[in-house]
Amino acid sequence: MRLLRSLLFAPANRLDLLRKFPRLDADAYVIDLEDGTPAAERERARGSLSEIVAELRAARLAAALFVRVNAARSADAARDFAAALDLPIDGIVVPKLAERADVRAAEAAIARAEDRTGRRLGAIALIETAIGVTNVDRLAAYWRARLVALAFGAEDFVTDIGGRRRADSREVLYARSRVVLSARANGIAALDQVFPWIQDSDGFATDAQFARDLGYAGKMCITPKQVELANDAFSPSVDEIERSRRLIRAYDDAKHAGRGTIELEGALVDEPMLRRAHAIVAWAGEAKPSSGAASS
Amino acid sequence: MRLLRSLLFAPANRLDLLRKFPRLDADAYVIDLEDGTPAAERERARGSLSEIVAELRAARLAAALFVRVNAARSADAARDFAAALDLPIDGIVVPKLAERADVRAAEAAIARAEDRTGRRLGAIALIETAIGVTNVDRLAAYWRARLVALAFGAEDFVTDIGGRRRADSREVLYARSRVVLSARANGIAALDQVFPWIQDSDGFATDAQFARDLGYAGKMCITPKQVELANDAFSPSVDEIERSRRLIRAYDDAKHAGRGTIELEGALVDEPMLRRAHAIVAWAGEAKPSSGAASS
Amino acid sequence: MRLLRSLLFAPANRLDLLRKFPRLDADAYVIDLEDGTPAAERERARGSLSEIVAELRAARLAAALFVRVNAARSADAARDFAAALDLPIDGIVVPKLAERADVRAAEAAIARAEDRTGRRLGAIALIETAIGVTNVDRLAAYWRARLVALAFGAEDFVTDIGGRRRADSREVLYARSRVVLSARANGIAALDQVFPWIQDSDGFATDAQFARDLGYAGKMCITPKQVELANDAFSPSVDEIERSRRLIRAYDDAKHAGRGTIELEGALVDEPMLRRAHAIVAWAGEAKPSSGAASS
Repeated sequence: MRLLRSLLFAPANRLDLLRKFPRLDADAYVIDLEDGTPAAERERARGSLSEIVAELRAARLAAALFVRVNAARSADAARDFAAALDLPIDGIVVPKLAERADVRAAEAAIARAEDRTGRRLGAIALIETAIGVTNVDRLAAYWRARLVALAFGAEDFVTDIGGRRRADSREVLYARSRVVLSARANGIAALDQVFPWIQDSDGFATDAQFARDLGYAGKMCITPKQVELANDAFSPSVDEIERSRRLIRAYDDAKHAGRGTIELEGALVDEPMLRRAHAIVAWAGEAKPSSGAASS
Repeated sequence: MRLLRSLLFAPANRLDLLRKFPRLDADAYVIDLEDGTPAAERERARGSLSEIVAELRAARLAAALFVRVNAARSADAARDFAAALDLPIDGIVVPKLAERADVRAAEAAIARAEDRTGRRLGAIALIETAIGVTNVDRLAAYWRARLVALAFGAEDFVTDIGGRRRADSREVLYARSRVVLSARANGIAALDQVFPWIQDSDGFATDAQFARDLGYAGKMCITPKQVELANDAFSPSVDEIERSRRLIRAYDDAKHAGRGTIELEGALVDEPMLRRAHAIVAWAGEAKPSSGAASS
Repeated sequence: MRLLRSLLFAPANRLDLLRKFPRLDADAYVIDLEDGTPAAERERARGSLSEIVAELRAARLAAALFVRVNAARSADAARDFAAALDLPIDGIVVPKLAERADVRAAEAAIARAEDRTGRRLGAIALIETAIGVTNVDRLAAYWRARLVALAFGAEDFVTDIGGRRRADSREVLYARSRVVLSARANGIAALDQVFPWIQDSDGFATDAQFARDLGYAGKMCITPKQVELANDAFSPSVDEIERSRRLIRAYDDAKHAGRGTIELEGALVDEPMLRRAHAIVAWAGEAKPSSGAASS
């Protein structure tokens, strides 16, 4: 699976922002036809979509490129599918996924486009309503062959449930934990909530580090600065890599001596910790280690 | 849906407490035939139920009036149904709802009473056992046509699971989050746990503010002081209303300029936040804004 | 149900550690053929299993004795079953339980052994993968007749989901809460995660106290010191017992006066708190009260 540490959104009607994509470091990008684009601007944005996608491809945008369509069974969605699915994109982001009927609507449109173009499209599903979280296990299982990732949308979820967002995100700990669990149980990556306080880099880093603790692979981002912070938080730090290498060496020595557990730096180490250490070291080969500066 | 910020319980055998209801500000009241009334007192309390309900109605109790019966399939419950369901009350509170058979027992009794009296009765279901929390999705979906609210009972839940209550309620964060999710996914209001430390107003306010963050509409209360605190916590504060109005104005300006996102007071605002702001402002028209004095 | 405050693991190839069992105070012991024993050592460990079990029984090991086998449908598991199930043990610990097929494989082996030996075997299931947590309700319900306990394995779970362990365990609060809920809803005891930082007694005690708040009956232990700390944390303290006795006395007095609720030490007390107090006092008759020294 490709790295998905950072998924940067920009509104489909903001060509100025979209044109910056090729100069940024996100692992994937989203042209947003949904909430980021006012309803009155959407038709025009759909009209310019083909051109901006061509322009980004010509500029050799290396990362994956997605289009966020409107909720699967809305009138807007049909127009979004028509405008987006035949373009040279990597897939779509489907918001407010709640019922199997949403999956079927999106899947039918995607499959027809694949037949027409011969290209393969992925999907990222946003789980961000009370019904979506309730149904997340069956939605993930039902659509796992298509899904690149499940993403948890805290802002919409809290709006839907009638709550309020907290800086510490304790009000969404249950839903956020449940979404990553469903994703991982189905072998899919999980993408964490948007952090809306765009000036607060420390807050973003803390939120991202905890998301990584939970098992999230990356974060939805809304500014280029957040992309940097996310790439950093979702990469192993130099310190993590060194600790992992020490652990692997010590454990291998112990195994040769017939021991399956060792004490290392205060903790009793056995198989699961060894597997985590191997995963960190393997990953360090793919991702540039982070400076650790953004770590909490 | 009517406001349900505060649901005040008093034991059915405590006429002194029940007679205070018309002078208090709760959004709804409960005459409690279950845990608040000793088993030895219940028969007498049932005998006086008709009279006290008539007295409260004569005193022009404006708010909704409920009777808490005993657990749906108990011997006590049948006697409670017989004593309560033909009275001019708004509905019943059903404790320890755990299985569909509990719903069927209560529903059958309620439906027969409605046929007899021609009046409509609502139900509030208490989810407060390990089995109840396990089954909460199917219980809420099965009984949603009747339910006014789902309530989470932390004291009984922790007793049933064999744990201990903590002041920070972290031990029930999972169950409390799951109950509000089931309620909201089924379009039902959710009522939060009792706060038993009746002298601790700050503790109550903190607990209630977090419940509101989670999506709870109100709280079960056991003293008149808790009613005041709950009404305050579950109403938008003057400050919240003003921030919401600023957000709506700024977002409308942005939309006219073709923008679907704006930066406001440190956060990038888009559709879900706008919807929350509209909900606050609409709500401010119904509920008297709270002073915010009890806010954490 | 027997007390299960502490379940001490030692690797099957570490006869030096296993021979210490009869001098320790754990409520149950596990000879570990899985992660604690290197794969290369397992065949030899199986060969010595019969002898060490006989030795421990001869040394009058009073507590329950289990063998942890390898994951139910692995090649190792079949060899583990063959080596362990006919021995005079109390049961097996099954790691990484994830699907009903795992239950069927283990159950078939156990049932055949019971037929051969005429002895009854229990099982403790480890829930420690994303799929295991997803399926925990149905696994517990399906195997409840055999299960002595469900145990939550945080290290393996976090490895499987791709996260990182935190000292405060917030990253597993959801899964840890869900496992104890499934266990209790099925009338089974729950055993809490291993605490790997073996030098940190305060950290262990805090972790154990919170596990008890959640409803866990005990903890998996990896050192004799952890056994002492777990026995202490999962027993009522002298202070808890005294408070419970005061509560019961005060509540009985109130009941005789026709009251179903009382105010005691700042809290309004009703039935669920009374039941918790009775459970503490009954338990105090079985377990030696803890000093409370290890309490947070």
